[in-house]
Amino acid sequence: MTRTTNARPRNAAATREAILASARRAFAQSGYDGAGVRDIAAGAGVTAMLVNRYFGSKEKLFAEVIAATMAAPIILTAENLASAKLGEAIAASLVDITKAGDTPLEGFLIMLHSASSKRAAEIGREQIEAGHQKVMTGALSGDLAPQRAALILSIVAGFQVMRQMMGLSALADAEPEALVKLLAPVFQLLIEAEGADRPL
Amino acid sequence: MTRTTNARPRNAAATREAILASARRAFAQSGYDGAGVRDIAAGAGVTAMLVNRYFGSKEKLFAEVIAATMAAPIILTAENLASAKLGEAIAASLVDITKAGDTPLEGFLIMLHSASSKRAAEIGREQIEAGHQKVMTGALSGDLAPQRAALILSIVAGFQVMRQMMGLSALADAEPEALVKLLAPVFQLLIEAEGADRPL
Repeated sequence: MTRTTNARPRNAAATREAILASARRAFAQSGYDGAGVRDIAAGAGVTAMLVNRYFGSKEKLFAEVIAATMAAPIILTAENLASAKLGEAIAASLVDITKAGDTPLEGFLIMLHSASSKRAAEIGREQIEAGHQKVMTGALSGDLAPQRAALILSIVAGFQVMRQMMGLSALADAEPEALVKLLAPVFQLLIEAEGADRPL
Repeated sequence: MTRTTNARPRNAAATREAILASARRAFAQSGYDGAGVRDIAAGAGVTAMLVNRYFGSKEKLFAEVIAATMAAPIILTAENLASAKLGEAIAASLVDITKAGDTPLEGFLIMLHSASSKRAAEIGREQIEAGHQKVMTGALSGDLAPQRAALILSIVAGFQVMRQMMGLSALADAEPEALVKLLAPVFQLLIEAEGADRPL
């Protein structure tokens, strides 16, 4: 982990931000189990005791980091959610952020590298349900909205795994437009769903 | 890791099998970086030197383990691939293997817990392309078959992540039939695709 050489931040808000930024880097690189409070503290130029005073525990710090990664969404933006072609908007954003050379989203890396920890998965579930899952569900009407929202999130996650992490050639080397054209109707199918927003 | 107390197997084929079985358990539990050749050897009741004599290197052993997990497919079975309702068949198998209480597929766990290793991802990609990706592509006709096959694999992976690893309530607690009903047309859309198998 790269340790910053910054002097200790002067006020509480700046200290909090510095710890959160260091924790994001550490969890993205080493996962929940691999990242230690001591290293996170060092990365922020503070003591482990101060990290615990600000966040209570590594579990609570992890929950705040996950929540923060969802606070500035890249796919589920207000603009995308308001789009008349929501399926295409989600597909285009997803294909764009997973293009060759781009680094995976930090929130995605954190969850992926923490997947082997049962506790991290529980915290991640709570945060995703209060974040992306709630936002996506709110954008849908009709039957089984929470299930359709969770399936959309599943496809987003699986595509990131296969195109960006595994680098399957069929996806990594494909024309972006072709992938958007294939994915847009898939998302649209789950957005509209049977019985949703349709006259009987 | 549970170490077997078996005596050393008597012949080459049995030794090979014992090493592969031990490696599967070790990689599924600890990932590529976390599992050591020494531990894998101990789990098979042989020496690390013998593991290297049989498999050449940890990388090659990992490749064989991944290939072995795909040799007995659970979703892309011959029966499913021959089904007239392929989308529904894939959806039903996927929902079935991710039900509450079931342990995740070993091949899936191995890849997920190895995702942080660049080398493991490369080996995994080669094996998936030679295995699941090739099989799924072979079952499709029409334009962009490799891309559509890779998208189907992406959805399968993402669903396993969100329903089984993260345990999103909307998926974990849903009626299996409802999930199959939502997923089947999604898969079918990618199976049929525009221009595939349709009269012009």
